[in-house]
Amino acid sequence: MNANSDRYTVGVDFGTLSGRAVVVRVSDGAELGAAVHEYAHRVIDDRLPGTDVRLGPDWALQSPGDWREVLRTAVPQAVAAAGVPPEHVIGIGTDFTACTVLPATADGTPLCETERFAARPHAWPKLWKHHAAQPHADRINAVAAKRGETWLPRYGGKISSEWQFAKGLQVLEEDPEVYGAAERWIEAADWIVWQLTGVETRNVCTAGYKAIRQDGAYPSEEFLAELNPGFTGFTGKFGPEPVPLGGLAGTLSATAAAWTGLPEGIAVAVGNVDAHVTAAAADAVRPGQMVAIMGTSTCHIMPSDALAEIPGMCGVVRDGIVPGLWGYEAGQSAVGDILGWFVETCVPGSYEREAERLGVSVHEHLTALAAGQEVGRHGLVALDWHNGNRSVLVDHDLSAVVVGQTLATRPEDTYRALIEATAFGARTIVEAFETSGVPVREFVAAGGLLKNRFLMQVYADVLRRPLSVIGSEQGCALGSAIHAAVAAGAHPDITAAAAAMGKRTEAAYLPDPARAAAYDLLYAEYRRLHDHFGRGEGPGGSAASGGPAGFAASGGNDVLHRLRALRNRAGA
Amino acid sequence: MNANSDRYTVGVDFGTLSGRAVVVRVSDGAELGAAVHEYAHRVIDDRLPGTDVRLGPDWALQSPGDWREVLRTAVPQAVAAAGVPPEHVIGIGTDFTACTVLPATADGTPLCETERFAARPHAWPKLWKHHAAQPHADRINAVAAKRGETWLPRYGGKISSEWQFAKGLQVLEEDPEVYGAAERWIEAADWIVWQLTGVETRNVCTAGYKAIRQDGAYPSEEFLAELNPGFTGFTGKFGPEPVPLGGLAGTLSATAAAWTGLPEGIAVAVGNVDAHVTAAAADAVRPGQMVAIMGTSTCHIMPSDALAEIPGMCGVVRDGIVPGLWGYEAGQSAVGDILGWFVETCVPGSYEREAERLGVSVHEHLTALAAGQEVGRHGLVALDWHNGNRSVLVDHDLSAVVVGQTLATRPEDTYRALIEATAFGARTIVEAFETSGVPVREFVAAGGLLKNRFLMQVYADVLRRPLSVIGSEQGCALGSAIHAAVAAGAHPDITAAAAAMGKRTEAAYLPDPARAAAYDLLYAEYRRLHDHFGRGEGPGGSAASGGPAGFAASGGNDVLHRLRALRNRAGA
Repeated sequence: MNANSDRYTVGVDFGTLSGRAVVVRVSDGAELGAAVHEYAHRVIDDRLPGTDVRLGPDWALQSPGDWREVLRTAVPQAVAAAGVPPEHVIGIGTDFTACTVLPATADGTPLCETERFAARPHAWPKLWKHHAAQPHADRINAVAAKRGETWLPRYGGKISSEWQFAKGLQVLEEDPEVYGAAERWIEAADWIVWQLTGVETRNVCTAGYKAIRQDGAYPSEEFLAELNPGFTGFTGKFGPEPVPLGGLAGTLSATAAAWTGLPEGIAVAVGNVDAHVTAAAADAVRPGQMVAIMGTSTCHIMPSDALAEIPGMCGVVRDGIVPGLWGYEAGQSAVGDILGWFVETCVPGSYEREAERLGVSVHEHLTALAAGQEVGRHGLVALDWHNGNRSVLVDHDLSAVVVGQTLATRPEDTYRALIEATAFGARTIVEAFETSGVPVREFVAAGGLLKNRFLMQVYADVLRRPLSVIGSEQGCALGSAIHAAVAAGAHPDITAAAAAMGKRTEAAYLPDPARAAAYDLLYAEYRRLHDHFGRGEGPGGSAASGGPAGFAASGGNDVLHRLRALRNRAGA
Repeated sequence: MNANSDRYTVGVDFGTLSGRAVVVRVSDGAELGAAVHEYAHRVIDDRLPGTDVRLGPDWALQSPGDWREVLRTAVPQAVAAAGVPPEHVIGIGTDFTACTVLPATADGTPLCETERFAARPHAWPKLWKHHAAQPHADRINAVAAKRGETWLPRYGGKISSEWQFAKGLQVLEEDPEVYGAAERWIEAADWIVWQLTGVETRNVCTAGYKAIRQDGAYPSEEFLAELNPGFTGFTGKFGPEPVPLGGLAGTLSATAAAWTGLPEGIAVAVGNVDAHVTAAAADAVRPGQMVAIMGTSTCHIMPSDALAEIPGMCGVVRDGIVPGLWGYEAGQSAVGDILGWFVETCVPGSYEREAERLGVSVHEHLTALAAGQEVGRHGLVALDWHNGNRSVLVDHDLSAVVVGQTLATRPEDTYRALIEATAFGARTIVEAFETSGVPVREFVAAGGLLKNRFLMQVYADVLRRPLSVIGSEQGCALGSAIHAAVAAGAHPDITAAAAAMGKRTEAAYLPDPARAAAYDLLYAEYRRLHDHFGRGEGPGGSAASGGPAGFAASGGNDVLHRLRALRNRAGA
């Protein structure tokens, strides 16, 4: 029994609809107690709370008060549930959705909490999935490409409308008064740490992935001026120099100690992002360990000692996951969401009734029916683009394709084909890393889809490699607790802390050679359709360049973009 | 009031599951009474009745006794329902599914009704959808192509496994004893007439479309010998020279008069096929009047004074619909079947319950939801190949493609896209006729799908032409009654009889110019996908040759064939 066996940290994960706190033993990562607090305002996408102010399409805001409430309720409840004396808690760490960003005053007061701006939509925190800044992102990308900004390839060639610059430019151009009053433009990940410590800090992770900080600098004033002369000085709102992950942001203030019931003065870790912090929880912070957080969508996080420009990745950031390594991020826009959509809208009542009779969910019923099939028996292949394609095509105007249905096709056939399609999407990303010179040494699955063992086996077979799995159902919060342990000095660094406290089962799923060989045939069809429908109508060049050797270099078909345009015109 | 206003004919339609008799007034086609008899044995696809003899996959047989029973029950019931004195009935006509064909003795006794062969599957009538002769059809097509048989292009380049030669060759090679004992090889369409008259006849329609009779001759002995030396003499089993449609096959025998309750000696019309006889019922027997019998699948029937080789048509036969004109047939392998499959397997319980609450069918509910959309609003385009493609690709190994689904796609969106896909399929056929120099002057809809008015409007919009509709819900039986009136001499010919007794509403649906223009865009996408997935992987040539000008000549993708092969291997 070492000193850490009676010391604990608290990890707090701020999600899209709720915040979760977990109390973790510093010696071995045992999760002793947890509590969840649902945000009262959840996602604000209709009208501002307590007002008649309506929001436009694609808006998504949140309320800072909801976040504070997690500290006030979930944290003390988790500590109570753990049965741990609060004075044995040595640190607290947090992770947040990102890019969730807000304008604030110089003392950290959110502008939406000032009387002057409470009824102004742009004064409120913009949630990660606020998508109303797409025109601004388009301009950012056009100007950056024209100027040959060296940071652009670090983001797969495209800055997302979800990130800080697009959202900030939207505020400037749609409500310049709010923009002018914003002395700070701050990620919620950093704002919540400020609330805990009373001291303003920034973290390298969101600075790199969401605020375009590369090689120690943000985008230049010249670049900002070209977007809008009023946009110069934007990075002056970004606060102090970012602090490395695992670093100590400060100590728990008296105010925050009162909220949480934790001892004043304990360590508070630097802010972090939910996906990135999961790498520590899975003890997967070494080069080539790709952690896939598989839920409604999938986020892929991987440290590497190699720097490369991978087509369609979300970003590569020095020290972005763990200090001393390059941190890569990629993503699939929808995974569990596709299966949820299918169950919700494509499965007949007879299946719902049979699932009920069997006492299982429709997902479980379909999975059981699909699992017995031989590979290829359904005669189907699908493109998993029901919510567009993040990596490697970076195109949210794409949509799905299902090929091969007949009058004999059953719901479980299509369900299986959709599962397979998401696995083919994952393989496409893994291959993009490897062909770019960034080896993927281990594929570690985390997130809610872990519970579908058939799906996991499909991934192992399709990826042709053993699948490791995280050993926690609350990977984000556990990861934050691990970071807290490092900040508190209980472990020398994230890698050591993750080794002690993180949980991973190696090779939990092994590929079956016969199934893997059969999937290779389906994957070849997937890639051919992927390039045909996803890479535009160039005369063979674009389709050929992205595909593995041996794929036909035929011209593509932009039908998906034309259908999207037709749909949008018909809806106008 | 002319002489015909108190004279009647009986039309009898022999379908796949039942036979229907209707009593019709000769003067104006008024349908006065009808009755249906369900076949006791329906489709025999499992084991021979009263035996343990099991049938192989893709087999489909019927029982001649079931057909006789229609004469014994449905005909007298229809006459009774009509309240017509039987002695005022001047003729009877019949139509049948085709190619439904049986081996018989020289006196017309089905071999399956002889003690010697009753337990031999090949002695039984093969129903049109008996698909176990595909290997034989493949050989027929290969040999015919190699020999350059001049009749092959008259069938769009392919002889179907459903037709007489493939089925006959299967009998020869799998049960030579039955083959040898078959003094006659006869369509059920002709066999039932033999039952009514006691005299053997053959009709030009099935002789042309199903028995490859062209320019007055069947395929040569040399051709048959090349298929199998034992197959020579096959056409010797075909009976007397075919008689023109509308002709008098003979008069009602005493036996058949006793069965039907009709007067002995009345006219019996030459046999006919269900789809073809519908042209008369719709008064659409003039050149360029295309009748689409739209049900589970669609059959297109059109007389023309032009002879042309239309890619992918089912057949062109001189006098095949009406004497003096070329008769064309084309088809879509599945139409209503696709919508039925969708409702059965792709619509959630919530929709079923809502339809029930509204007191409508799920089809009606989906149609109502879909009908309000603007064209293109669903963002989808589909290929209607759930049961392969008959015309114009003649490829039953194709399968469906659905393009454009997103997480926002609702069941009514896909349902509408599938309706549209079948309309695009119909337009593809119409365009194949017209670009081959065979003008389509009027599109006349018949069949069960008539009752979906939204679907009909989609067809008018997509085809960009007024849609006429048949005025009868029992078009086949009405058509047979019209042919009976001609055979009885009550009208001088089919055209005159159809004008008096057939029923058609011209321009029942008019295309909307704005919708038609929007559908043009979706149709262009359909054709591009059609050629890409349907025309093989040639280097641009094959895809370009079949498409209208302006479509890209990109190489195709044989993924549908590869998926089918993979499916079949996985199932083996």
